[in-house]
Amino acid sequence: MSVTNLDEIFFPRSAAVIGSSNNDFFTWAMLGGKLRGQVQLVNPNYPEVLGQKCYASILDIPGPVDYAVIAVPSRLVLSTVRDCIEKGLKAVHLYTSGFSETGTEEGIKLQEQLAALAKGKIRLVGPNCMGIYCPKSGLCFNPLASYREGNVGVITQSGTFAQFFIQAEKPRDIRISKLISYGNAVDLDSPELLDYLGDDPDTAVIALYVEGINDGRPLLEALQRATAKKPVIALKGGITQQGGRVAHSHTGALAGAGTVWETMFRQAGVLLVDDFEALLDTVLGFSKTRPPAGRGVSIITYSGGFSVVQSDMCARAGLEVPQFSQRAMQELRKIVPAAGTMVGNPLDAWQVFQRTKQGQGALDEVVKIIADESQIHSIVLQMDNLRYLARVWGENFKENFDAFTKIVLDGCRYTRDERGKLILLSIHMDPFSDDNMERAVYLDFKKRCEADGFAVYPSLKTALGAAANMYKYKVLSRK
Amino acid sequence: MSVTNLDEIFFPRSAAVIGSSNNDFFTWAMLGGKLRGQVQLVNPNYPEVLGQKCYASILDIPGPVDYAVIAVPSRLVLSTVRDCIEKGLKAVHLYTSGFSETGTEEGIKLQEQLAALAKGKIRLVGPNCMGIYCPKSGLCFNPLASYREGNVGVITQSGTFAQFFIQAEKPRDIRISKLISYGNAVDLDSPELLDYLGDDPDTAVIALYVEGINDGRPLLEALQRATAKKPVIALKGGITQQGGRVAHSHTGALAGAGTVWETMFRQAGVLLVDDFEALLDTVLGFSKTRPPAGRGVSIITYSGGFSVVQSDMCARAGLEVPQFSQRAMQELRKIVPAAGTMVGNPLDAWQVFQRTKQGQGALDEVVKIIADESQIHSIVLQMDNLRYLARVWGENFKENFDAFTKIVLDGCRYTRDERGKLILLSIHMDPFSDDNMERAVYLDFKKRCEADGFAVYPSLKTALGAAANMYKYKVLSRK
Repeated sequence: MSVTNLDEIFFPRSAAVIGSSNNDFFTWAMLGGKLRGQVQLVNPNYPEVLGQKCYASILDIPGPVDYAVIAVPSRLVLSTVRDCIEKGLKAVHLYTSGFSETGTEEGIKLQEQLAALAKGKIRLVGPNCMGIYCPKSGLCFNPLASYREGNVGVITQSGTFAQFFIQAEKPRDIRISKLISYGNAVDLDSPELLDYLGDDPDTAVIALYVEGINDGRPLLEALQRATAKKPVIALKGGITQQGGRVAHSHTGALAGAGTVWETMFRQAGVLLVDDFEALLDTVLGFSKTRPPAGRGVSIITYSGGFSVVQSDMCARAGLEVPQFSQRAMQELRKIVPAAGTMVGNPLDAWQVFQRTKQGQGALDEVVKIIADESQIHSIVLQMDNLRYLARVWGENFKENFDAFTKIVLDGCRYTRDERGKLILLSIHMDPFSDDNMERAVYLDFKKRCEADGFAVYPSLKTALGAAANMYKYKVLSRK
Repeated sequence: MSVTNLDEIFFPRSAAVIGSSNNDFFTWAMLGGKLRGQVQLVNPNYPEVLGQKCYASILDIPGPVDYAVIAVPSRLVLSTVRDCIEKGLKAVHLYTSGFSETGTEEGIKLQEQLAALAKGKIRLVGPNCMGIYCPKSGLCFNPLASYREGNVGVITQSGTFAQFFIQAEKPRDIRISKLISYGNAVDLDSPELLDYLGDDPDTAVIALYVEGINDGRPLLEALQRATAKKPVIALKGGITQQGGRVAHSHTGALAGAGTVWETMFRQAGVLLVDDFEALLDTVLGFSKTRPPAGRGVSIITYSGGFSVVQSDMCARAGLEVPQFSQRAMQELRKIVPAAGTMVGNPLDAWQVFQRTKQGQGALDEVVKIIADESQIHSIVLQMDNLRYLARVWGENFKENFDAFTKIVLDGCRYTRDERGKLILLSIHMDPFSDDNMERAVYLDFKKRCEADGFAVYPSLKTALGAAANMYKYKVLSRK
């Protein structure tokens, strides 16, 4: 009988890799996680893989097996799944491609046969996908994944985006509860997965990448059920006619008209973003904190140019950069020198960044004055000039850096914990910079912020984009 | 008499730093460049700075001085400029702030006095700005600047953006001919600077960041003259009402209504971009190559997900991802296996990326087939899976990497040199990744592409954004 509680799929007691070899990343990944002792390998061509016994068939394995990763040529898929049913597996993940996504008669027929074979007998993830990553159970397809448990649930029709989420774990501090790359969705499809992650106590926010669906009604209903419990952020592949054509040849999906999808997401209270980068950035924000209560944002920066351009960007994105009250302006003027800076919102506070002694008008005081403003609901701190400060501090680096970080985090904690407001940080680092010393300073600072639960973005633009999307979600969800 | 040929400002025979000290970045920068032997230091507080004689006043310097950087408190600016006039300097750059940008009566008055003092007697850059970077002459304000000469001219009202352009030189291969951060524009303003860079044989493309101008007519005319000669890419700070308020407190500029600026730029054939990142990315494209002849783009990738999402993005940005001809499809099918890839445009060619022997259906053949398609005007290569390949190659890395790079560059050169089409590359690297080994591989690959004159972007999204902007410029300029 086919399982309906997906926990039985995500937490198998034993698993197998069918099509295992010494150069197979599924084998590497599965042997590297918590399931280690419960993973069997299957491939008739090898008696042994990576020093572990390798069986010719799943049927040869002595004990019970709950779950298998199938990475065999497409011509062997039906017989392999048949063996898995006979062995009594609950679910299989089919990495193999060559089905309806090819657009060929042969591929479409094979997919139909696969669906008919599995129906009611075994659950399928895929085909044509990366499968499941569940750090808590040890299911994994990426040998470099960290297994740090998090609160971000990911449902993605694209395997690349699944890999990008896992790769983002360390550099972006996006920690995953459960991730499913579900490909052609012959059996397990987005509605059922949404219900599962919606109910999952380990998941606080859901990222969804979808290209198409056979029947929109169950998806709409599942989205409504999920957003009643937690934020759902969606990226729709093939939202334009041009993209829709491409989606069809990617996962065989019928992408449908963009406006239909947009309406559905809006009705369900799902935030739709434009690209993968925005999906990552927005999910990061939600994984750490609640959305801001209103549209008012304050930018604390070291640059007049960015103040101006990012205020334009906020206006376009629906955020407001309100002026400060007379009270705040008076207090700020006591701290921030007038010449060469802009006392106002955005606040050009470059001279304040250099003060590393508390009680002497350092950044924590500035942040607290602004956090007290009722018309300000989010604060974004642009910390790029840490680069400059590190050079100024020279041999007194460690002492100043520690003091500086403490000051910044004091301000951040006040904003979040005392005032219940959103606070995000940004530090710009060119991805192509070979300055590894500078990068090390930035990463140290970032790590300390993350240890305290704050989100750090690689540019002011992306931090404000995340704040804008979080506010959009707030409006959309009417919560 | 006041100079009108700006070469006399950008190529001084001798220069001074007024307000020099051991901790002054102007001093560091000016002593580090080609002007080294011709730079004098001035500060009454020090007899010596960095081991070099320091004069109490510019008037004490025995020989002639053409140009000075003035970094003194605002109360000393008028007397310092008066001394410079007496000494016979042609131009000064005023780093000092505290003028009209403060919005105070005092600051506005000081700016008026400065203007009146200088008029007809000495040329002024600023105040409240970083001044001039001219790698050919050695004028500089950033001690870390490279002095590599390039073809990108930059005119920016923001000092931060000036610094960001210089910082982008190495990681982004954006090489500068002349850069001017001009701040409050008391004397030298954007129209005159546009005329100068428009006529400058060393400048192939002009990046403009402007917040405001007193009189729009001269700017419109200067823009028209400049675009008749070379592409001008503009970012307008304060294009929204909200941003306009902020711009006023940054450089004292009256930003004016966004629609007026948009109309002016369109009339002048200037491409207006939305943010600083787009300005950098677009200028990089123009610094290497001409814009594409049409809207047709082909994406060669290793990912179905990116194919779909970026096709959507192209549709939104005005690019077309046309289907390939029957001829091309037939030829591509001989090279690209059907299963797990998408034979079409975008082309998911991940299995082809791994072939490092020419003549065996490697990437160069794929690129050439596509470059021959008449409906394709640009090709963007997404090279992220170099990360994966480097692991696969293992100990045969060097041999495979060399062969792979050669194959890629053969395809790129064919596209550009034989077919006259635009080809851009992207390699995704998270700015916060601490994988310095992986970064080193990427940077090595990138360096080889750049040595051959190709532009490399840190994401497929930004590469396509640059291609879209280059095509927009093509349409706008009707050339």
